[in-house]
Order: sequence, then structure tokens, then C-alpha cells
Amino acid sequence: MNKQSNLHMTTDEFRKQGHAVINWIADYYDQIEDYPVLSQVQPGDIRNSLPKSAPQKGRSYEEILSDMDQFMPGITHWQSPNFHAYFPCATSGPAILGDLISTGLGIQGMIWATSPACTEVETHVLDWLVDMMALPQKFKSNSRGGGVLQDTASSSSLVALIAARERTSNGEINKKGYNGQLTVYTSTQAHSSIEKAVKLAGMGKMSLRLVDVDSQFAMDSNHLRELIKNDIDNGLTPAFVCATAGTTSSTAFDPIDKIGKICEEFGIWLHVDAAMAGPAALCPEFRFIHDGIEFADSYTFNPHKWMLTNFDCSVFYVADRKSLIDAMSILPEYLKNKATESGAVFDYRDWGIPLGRRFRALKLWHVINYYGVEGLQEYIREHVANAQELKSWVEADDRFEIVAPAKLNLICFRHKKGDAFNEKLMNRLNESGKIYLTHTKLNDQFVIRFSVGQATTTLDHLKKSWELILKSVDELEKTP
Amino acid sequence: MNKQSNLHMTTDEFRKQGHAVINWIADYYDQIEDYPVLSQVQPGDIRNSLPKSAPQKGRSYEEILSDMDQFMPGITHWQSPNFHAYFPCATSGPAILGDLISTGLGIQGMIWATSPACTEVETHVLDWLVDMMALPQKFKSNSRGGGVLQDTASSSSLVALIAARERTSNGEINKKGYNGQLTVYTSTQAHSSIEKAVKLAGMGKMSLRLVDVDSQFAMDSNHLRELIKNDIDNGLTPAFVCATAGTTSSTAFDPIDKIGKICEEFGIWLHVDAAMAGPAALCPEFRFIHDGIEFADSYTFNPHKWMLTNFDCSVFYVADRKSLIDAMSILPEYLKNKATESGAVFDYRDWGIPLGRRFRALKLWHVINYYGVEGLQEYIREHVANAQELKSWVEADDRFEIVAPAKLNLICFRHKKGDAFNEKLMNRLNESGKIYLTHTKLNDQFVIRFSVGQATTTLDHLKKSWELILKSVDELEKTP
Repeated sequence: MNKQSNLHMTTDEFRKQGHAVINWIADYYDQIEDYPVLSQVQPGDIRNSLPKSAPQKGRSYEEILSDMDQFMPGITHWQSPNFHAYFPCATSGPAILGDLISTGLGIQGMIWATSPACTEVETHVLDWLVDMMALPQKFKSNSRGGGVLQDTASSSSLVALIAARERTSNGEINKKGYNGQLTVYTSTQAHSSIEKAVKLAGMGKMSLRLVDVDSQFAMDSNHLRELIKNDIDNGLTPAFVCATAGTTSSTAFDPIDKIGKICEEFGIWLHVDAAMAGPAALCPEFRFIHDGIEFADSYTFNPHKWMLTNFDCSVFYVADRKSLIDAMSILPEYLKNKATESGAVFDYRDWGIPLGRRFRALKLWHVINYYGVEGLQEYIREHVANAQELKSWVEADDRFEIVAPAKLNLICFRHKKGDAFNEKLMNRLNESGKIYLTHTKLNDQFVIRFSVGQATTTLDHLKKSWELILKSVDELEKTP
Repeated sequence: MNKQSNLHMTTDEFRKQGHAVINWIADYYDQIEDYPVLSQVQPGDIRNSLPKSAPQKGRSYEEILSDMDQFMPGITHWQSPNFHAYFPCATSGPAILGDLISTGLGIQGMIWATSPACTEVETHVLDWLVDMMALPQKFKSNSRGGGVLQDTASSSSLVALIAARERTSNGEINKKGYNGQLTVYTSTQAHSSIEKAVKLAGMGKMSLRLVDVDSQFAMDSNHLRELIKNDIDNGLTPAFVCATAGTTSSTAFDPIDKIGKICEEFGIWLHVDAAMAGPAALCPEFRFIHDGIEFADSYTFNPHKWMLTNFDCSVFYVADRKSLIDAMSILPEYLKNKATESGAVFDYRDWGIPLGRRFRALKLWHVINYYGVEGLQEYIREHVANAQELKSWVEADDRFEIVAPAKLNLICFRHKKGDAFNEKLMNRLNESGKIYLTHTKLNDQFVIRFSVGQATTTLDHLKKSWELILKSVDELEKTP
């Protein structure tokens, strides 16, 4: 991009079109409640409306921006205050602008030398977050540990598993391949990314043990101990335990302290996955979610879920960065440089899977500085209070039951009329376009999940949603 | 973000601050040649200027935007027309705006249902690109194959390797773990991400064979055949060959046709890595880089390198999508939905490592529509022509030698005075701030790489750079 060009967008045109796009986004948020939350298109509807081949000649930017009109029916509105499906994925103005600057700069932070600010700001805000969330000091860069941004918790967990695999095998698997001896543990309620990681890392599903959960859907640490001892008795080597602080299904909290002591006893890498719930620890009163976190070898949470920082932004901490770097490091000739050779810098290339890296920390810098610690706390507290209010309404209506402890911002509930009724109810609600909810299964029962966490969801939105749910129940009960 | 809030940025403030950021980016590009291309800061300089802890109270957005003044000395200017290090990473106005809309929408495309347009536009533009680059029709979604966007070629190659691992082992490794029997082949000049992928996938470096290259730094297919036969004789199972179309060191082109026939003969998965050079195939006259591509089981190139689409954007095609999905698939209860169960849609969650996905295809949609096929061809042709012009200047000066064939946009050259002189020359140039070059080693000699590919680099920039190089040589020759 420069001042004059017959081929490229000029900086003057960029100003003009950029302002139009900013306005387009602001208009979108102003009108977001007018859209059906869940896209109502059928498979193929969007594609069928698009030209069969790419244009030979370029089109004007005005035309391209207007293409969005064609795409919008195929958008499910994750930022709607009535989006309560899956997990929150909350955006914010400062995060969008921070990411825009990163995109505009167009730099590559693969190693320190390719843009020192990209690496140093990342290290710096991740050190800040350790204090903000009262995480162990061993995760800070001035200790033996450190933090790094990954795209998603799936990647964070995979990277943690590979580091554990190599620490346990003393680097032998990186040399000779997986030896069939290592075992991995997580609860039956853990995220699917753990099973996926075990497969990607070449360890095979047979090395994965799914630990039972208690009545609150939290890992049964006695069963964990049993499984570990059994594996050791059979000549296997336990290598990795993933504890979840806030499961995807029901926001259950595994007892990290009990699990941590077991991991310490047997010398097993403990990874803690707090992808959604982690930011609750910004508030002292919710830090129970991390009880025992001092035992963790690695920890991940996603600011792109419940901390107002646009996707993708997953924070990953490790207590011993050497074990991570040893597992991931490569140093081809074309990346050699003085700063790397001096050992005085972090080269984040060796802390994850991709070589190339965006200046992802900028959006986190923007969010933390714009809200301040107190602003972020206010945001979390409001959501938890609102979700608890919703819970009280469900509890007060004896046609419904709460199916899992709801300590934070997710309410798992069902109508007592059984699975088919609940599924019908959920589909009816989603087809209305007024709200979007998803389900899970707990104790083999179909359960509706109501997740509170989008930036602009207020108590008033929840009231209207609950009224809508009650009205839909009435209607369903009337239809034979 | 909404109209009124005491906590969040309002849409009105977003309009105001968004326009300021757009102007900031345009100003940056207007002034980009005033910055030293390579950041001149020392390790720690940036961090030491930042507050030790996060602010308790939020700060104004004006203040946060002005923080960029502190960061800029730590930026290496990848978009400068005088950036000739590593590989191009060219941005463009439409790409920045397309990515901004994606960030603004804040949707998750993990499965079709969570935003059908995200999946369908991605499939659609990747089908377009097959025709635009004359790639095999088997990579199209209406065949048994298909395309998907990954973050980087590192991830694309890892995903390809895992799919090959599972196809060859019939899914047994996903079940039981790596069996020590499979072998992987790539040239000594291949990208470091291949070795990294072999380790991440649990196959161990011992399973990797580095094939010799010929005098042009292209894979010696005879040696490949020898290695394969030798492994088979030893009871091993060759599983994966990675051919490179444009190596990182010198843009060498492996003979895909010869390699492909060998892979076909022995039933080995052929992956082609064209990360940087791929977009040259937009022009019919450069399609020689893909001769034999019809043999490939998978193929990757990065529009974020040489196709004006901001990082991150790596295109990955597979000829048999079932083998990819079988290797990567997971389906937890909370992701079940009617569209997935019907089989009528792609769920890209199963085509890569992360679960969550941005609407990455929007920026590619913007770029292809803004430039049109002809605009992209013009861009590639101009860079190749300019690089060839530079090559002629080097050739005309008998103090220098061209060290590798320069078929496209990378010139590998050295002064005949030896390694130390060349290293001194390169460091001097980089410290001047007027240009940024990096090196490689070819035939054990220190070689300076001059990569042409940033959007706004003109022949005039190359002329000035070459004059600067000659002046620096003169100065160095004068200093004892």
C-alpha cells in the first residue's frame, strides 16, 4: 500500500474504505439484535449465490463490501447478547482495534529479531496476567517458566502433551518415535481436544485413560490414582494428566490440588485446561477454580472466550520452558542470528507449532489497558451474578431441574418431561432466531446449556430469554 | 459493543477510534520508508520501557494508541519496500479490511452450523484458486478432495503427515500409537517444519530420510528411490514424501513429476510444499513450478507470503478428504447437530488442529475480488521481472557470483571474497537501516539472499539497494 498505484489500493483509498468498514462494523453491533441469532440457511444456500469462478478483472471495493449482504444470512451471530450456545467468544472495541493494528503492521514475530516488540510485549502482558490472576510465579519469564500465545486451547494442550512426552522419554521419542510405554489421563468430561492431541502426537488412543467423575462431574482423584498404579504395575509410564478447570459440558472443576499431589508423587506432568473459566480468577472471590494450581507444569486459558479479546488468543504457561523448547526447537541456517545465539531473547517459534506468528499480544495489550484490572473484574462479576439470577428462576419453577452445579456463568438445566421434550424445546427456541442454545449429555440425559458471557448480555436479556423459554414450553405442552 | 455502556467501548467511540486507527495505518504506510527496516533495539529495550504491572483503572483509547510510539522502535518493517529478508509477507488494503470485518464479526467457524457462510465462502474461494492456478481438479470440493485454510505451512505439512501416517497404518497409529515402521522423505533443502512435523507426530527423527539434492539444490529422485528401496528391504514402510516447490534457502524446485511416479509406484503419500512460490502458478508461464502436481496427495501454499493476503493464511488441498478427516475427526456430544449428521456439509474442525476457526476466507475473498486474476498476475510478473533485472546486475559485476538458479523472485548471491566478507557486508547493510537481507548456506558457503515480493517494491527500490550494496562493498574493501 502506498500513495500512488494503478494496481494496489492507495493509502487515500484505504482511509476512505477503512472508515466505511469501521462504520459497517459499528452499524452491525448497533443492529445485531435484529438478526436471527442462529443462521437459518440450508447447506449450499450461500455457495449457490456466488459466482462460479473468480473475476478476471478486479472489482471496486464498494462492490466487495456489499458482498457482505449475501454472506450475512449465513452468519450465526456469536456477538449477539442472545447468543448462549457453546461458550462465550466475547469481542470488544479495543480488541478489534488492537488486532487491526497488528494486521496493518503486517509483521512476523517468528523470532525475536524479526520484530523485538512482538516478542517482548507478548512476554510482558503474559507476566502481567500471572499477577492479575494470582497464578504461580513460576509461570513468569523471570523464573524458569514463561507464557506464550497460541491460537486455541487445542494447540496449547497438544504442545503441553508433546513437551510432557519428551520430558518423560528424555527426548527419546523425538529421536526414535513413540515407544508405546507412556500413558495419559483426563476425565470423561474433558474437552475432545485432549483425545485429539493424544492421536496427533502419535501416542494412540490406547494410551489415553478416561478417569471417572463424581456427582458434580469433577474428576475422581481416587480413580485417577488407581489407574496410574495399575499402569505402573503393568510396566507403563504415566506421562501426562490434564485436569480441567471448567469443563465444556457443565463447567465442572477437577480437584487440582488432589490431582496435583498425585502427579507430584509419581512425577507426572500436570496440565490444567481452564480455556473458558480461567478469567474468573481475575476476581479474588472466584480463585477457588485454581486451588492447587501451584502443582501445574502447564496451564492454558483463552482470553478469546471470556476476556473480551477477539479470537484467536489462547494463553499458555509452562513452569519449565526448557522442557517445552527442547521438545519443539529447530534452528535452520536461514533463521540464525546474533540475538538468538546470545541466548538473551525468547524465540517463540520454539514454543508452538507454527513458525510464523502475528503480533497477537497487541489486542491483549489493548484490552487490559482499556478496561484495567477493575473493569475486567466488573465484567466477570456481572456475568456471574446474572447467571446466578437465571439459575434462581430455573430453580423456582418445579417443571425444571438444574442438572449440574452452576458456580459461574453456565446453567445446565432440563425440563422434567424427558429428552425428546427438551430437544424439541431447544430446536424450537433456536428456530425462532431470538436465542441460540446448545445441548450436552450429562448422566446420559439430554441437557440444555445456557452460557452467559457475551459482552453486552444484560439481566434484561436473560429475563426476556427466560420468558421465551416458558412461553415455548407452554406452546409445546399444548401441541399434541 | 453497543450504543450505551459505562464499561465497554460504545459503538460511537468505536467509530471515532476506529477512524483514528485506520488513519494511523495509512500514515504508517505513507511513512514506512522513513523507518530503519530492521529494528535496531537491544534485547530488553522495549520491555524495560513498559509499566511493571497492569493498570488497575482503564486508560483512554487515545493513550493506548499512543503506546504504539513506544513499540515502533521494536518493529522490523516487513512491509517496507526495502525488506528483502526471509520471504515476502505482502499485505494489501483489501486484505487488511477483509480481516477487519472478520475480526469485527467475531464469529466461530469450527463447524458449518456455527456460521455456514464461514465454511462455504472458504470452500468456494479455495475451489476458485484450483482453477486460477491450474491445480488438479481432484483438489476441488466437488471431487473426493477439497481445500481448507490453515494458519501456516508448518501446520499444513503436519496435518498432511498425520493423514499420511493414518492412511498408511490404516488408522492403527491413531489407535495404538506409532509403530516405528513408517519412514518419511524430504530433501536436505526442505523447510525445517518437515523435521518438526515428524517429531510432533511422534514418529521420531530416525524415521526421517534427507534426500540429496542436485547441483540446482533440487531433490535427486534417484537417491529418493534408493532410500525407499533400502527401507523396504529393511522391512520398513515408506509413508510420506514432501517435495518442495520453491525451497526457503534458494527457491529450488524438486522434480515433482519424477518424485510423483516413485510415490505412485510404491503407494506413498506425496505432499508438495509450495509455501512461497505457489502463487507464481497464477501466471501460465510460471506453471513449470508445478510440473507433476497431478501426483500429489496434498499441496500447500501461503497467500500470506506472495499473494497480498495478510498473515495468517495458508491454503491446504487434499486429494482424498476422507483420509484427512478420518485422521483428525472428533465428535463430542456438545458439537452434534443436524447438519453434521446429515453429511451434507464440511465441518472444518476435522481438517486441522484447532477447534475454533476465524472467518479467514474473507480476506482471501477481498484480495481475489479486488485484484481480479489479471491484477494478481500483474503483481507476480512485475516482481519476477524486477528480480531478474537485479540478477542481471549481479551477473554483470565479476566481483559477485550468483549461487543458485533464480527462476522467480529470489536472488542468492555472494561476493567472491569469502564467507567472512559476505557476513560483514550483510551486517553492515542491515545496520544501515536502509535495507534488510538475510543469509543461508549453500554448498557450505555463506550466501546472501535477496527476496523480492513486498507489495510496493519497485525497480527503483532495487536500483537504490544495489547501489547501496556496491557502496558498502567499496567501503568494506577500504577498511583494513
